[in-house]
Amino acid sequence: MKTIKKNAKKNIDKCTVGIAGLGLMGGAIAIALKKAAGVRPPGPRLFAHDSNGGILTRACSRGIIDQGFNDPGEMLARCDLVFLCLNPSAAIRFAGRWIGCFKYGALITDIAGTKETVAAAAEQLLRARADLDFIPGHPLAGAEKGGFAYAEKVSFTGKNYILTPLSQNRPENLAFLKEFIHHLGFGRVTETTASDHDQKIAFTSQLCHVIAAALVDCEADRKITRYGGGSFEDLTRIAMLNTPMWTELFLENRFLLSRIEQFEKSLDKIKTLIKNGRPAELEERLAAVRKQRIAMTGE
Amino acid sequence: MKTIKKNAKKNIDKCTVGIAGLGLMGGAIAIALKKAAGVRPPGPRLFAHDSNGGILTRACSRGIIDQGFNDPGEMLARCDLVFLCLNPSAAIRFAGRWIGCFKYGALITDIAGTKETVAAAAEQLLRARADLDFIPGHPLAGAEKGGFAYAEKVSFTGKNYILTPLSQNRPENLAFLKEFIHHLGFGRVTETTASDHDQKIAFTSQLCHVIAAALVDCEADRKITRYGGGSFEDLTRIAMLNTPMWTELFLENRFLLSRIEQFEKSLDKIKTLIKNGRPAELEERLAAVRKQRIAMTGE
Repeated sequence: MKTIKKNAKKNIDKCTVGIAGLGLMGGAIAIALKKAAGVRPPGPRLFAHDSNGGILTRACSRGIIDQGFNDPGEMLARCDLVFLCLNPSAAIRFAGRWIGCFKYGALITDIAGTKETVAAAAEQLLRARADLDFIPGHPLAGAEKGGFAYAEKVSFTGKNYILTPLSQNRPENLAFLKEFIHHLGFGRVTETTASDHDQKIAFTSQLCHVIAAALVDCEADRKITRYGGGSFEDLTRIAMLNTPMWTELFLENRFLLSRIEQFEKSLDKIKTLIKNGRPAELEERLAAVRKQRIAMTGE
Repeated sequence: MKTIKKNAKKNIDKCTVGIAGLGLMGGAIAIALKKAAGVRPPGPRLFAHDSNGGILTRACSRGIIDQGFNDPGEMLARCDLVFLCLNPSAAIRFAGRWIGCFKYGALITDIAGTKETVAAAAEQLLRARADLDFIPGHPLAGAEKGGFAYAEKVSFTGKNYILTPLSQNRPENLAFLKEFIHHLGFGRVTETTASDHDQKIAFTSQLCHVIAAALVDCEADRKITRYGGGSFEDLTRIAMLNTPMWTELFLENRFLLSRIEQFEKSLDKIKTLIKNGRPAELEERLAAVRKQRIAMTGE
């Protein structure tokens, strides 16, 4: 077994980046990298694999990637940094299947919206190949609709990014990945455990998507938006979700059910005040909510 | 009693408009009128009354209104069109208290977010003074925070406006009010009954505000937005609501409770699919929701 040099921090401009899955997020990362290279050349060399060869051709001809690979193994053998931009289960399957093909010492990361299952899979992979590193991550950016066609609608500027490092991760790789994430345009990078991530994201993301879906689901009138002033539209824009991915995220996040139940209780309290016609208590609760929401975002 | 001339449709440029309550919506109407007058002069003469005299002075010095009145009676005596821009119950009280002061043949309208109670009060007022006309209305526009200070953040461009005319309303006044609403920048004007309005708005507006409030209410961590990617922020922006007004709207809309219950059922269905781990059925439901939401707004 070769020795891995300590403090051999990768260099953005000298590394080759591979994106597995050129969908919404993979495409957005590629576009952000090419934009950043325009500002500060030369930038990394950028490869991509996608099961849809047509997307690779389009991305190549538009200069979004340097080369497309139909064969993942061929690409992985040349990449210093690999972004797995697939649904959680597909990312895990992909990494397991091609484990033998990654370049020696490569750094792997992913973008899945739940992190516990990915983190467990990553630990297992690192036991099989100790030269690799795998730092699970979650860029908190997106668009209502999925797919490469919507990638350019995604903005990373100032957005949050969560990393859930494993105890095995090398500090120099963690430092490099954070630098790379800022290079893509992201703002705050927060490090936490996979379980803390899932607990918080169950609230800020998955619960919100469940609510949006339930809200659309309880109204059959497609002309209802004539009676809309923005609230309904804002609350339900995310209901135009990528259904296979969100099905996975809903089922994989073990904190989601309790978050839904917490919300149900909170909704029931407000409903009860309305039902019982309690203006003073209702106004007091709404005032507390208003104060809390303003404190949450400083808006 | 004087005879009211048939087909004496009012003229925007020749009429005097009075705004009772220069808050968020009253202020936004004044600003929109002055903007429209800049494009197509001269525009109507614009008066306003507010219990806060300082706001009237500020609005006057900024050229947003032509004159401010501390005494509502003095203003009402000179206005051909009056916008009651107050909370629902305050609008009803105001119109009742000053009923004797309105100019002969004046047209009154309001902006309240529930219409059944206002419509009932308007009918009663018209029985007391048959020369007046009162067409209840609801501009579907706003901002997260209330008050005159936020009025310029409100955009009317292309927004929806609902009118719930009474059987007594004169056709020429209805035509004039619609013309006036478009003059303010609004897009579609929908006419319906007060009860149909309340039923639909209970869904698109009040239910959304209840959900947003409940969502903020079930999380105490003020730093949770570090884990936010936009969904939580979008769903809860409206939780920074004008608490006295929304307390009234929640308690006055008799359809809201059943709308909340409908939503609870719909949420429970999704929760059950997650709880029972049913990927195929969950994905099918989410796909139906996605299709429905896209059909609703053409997005």
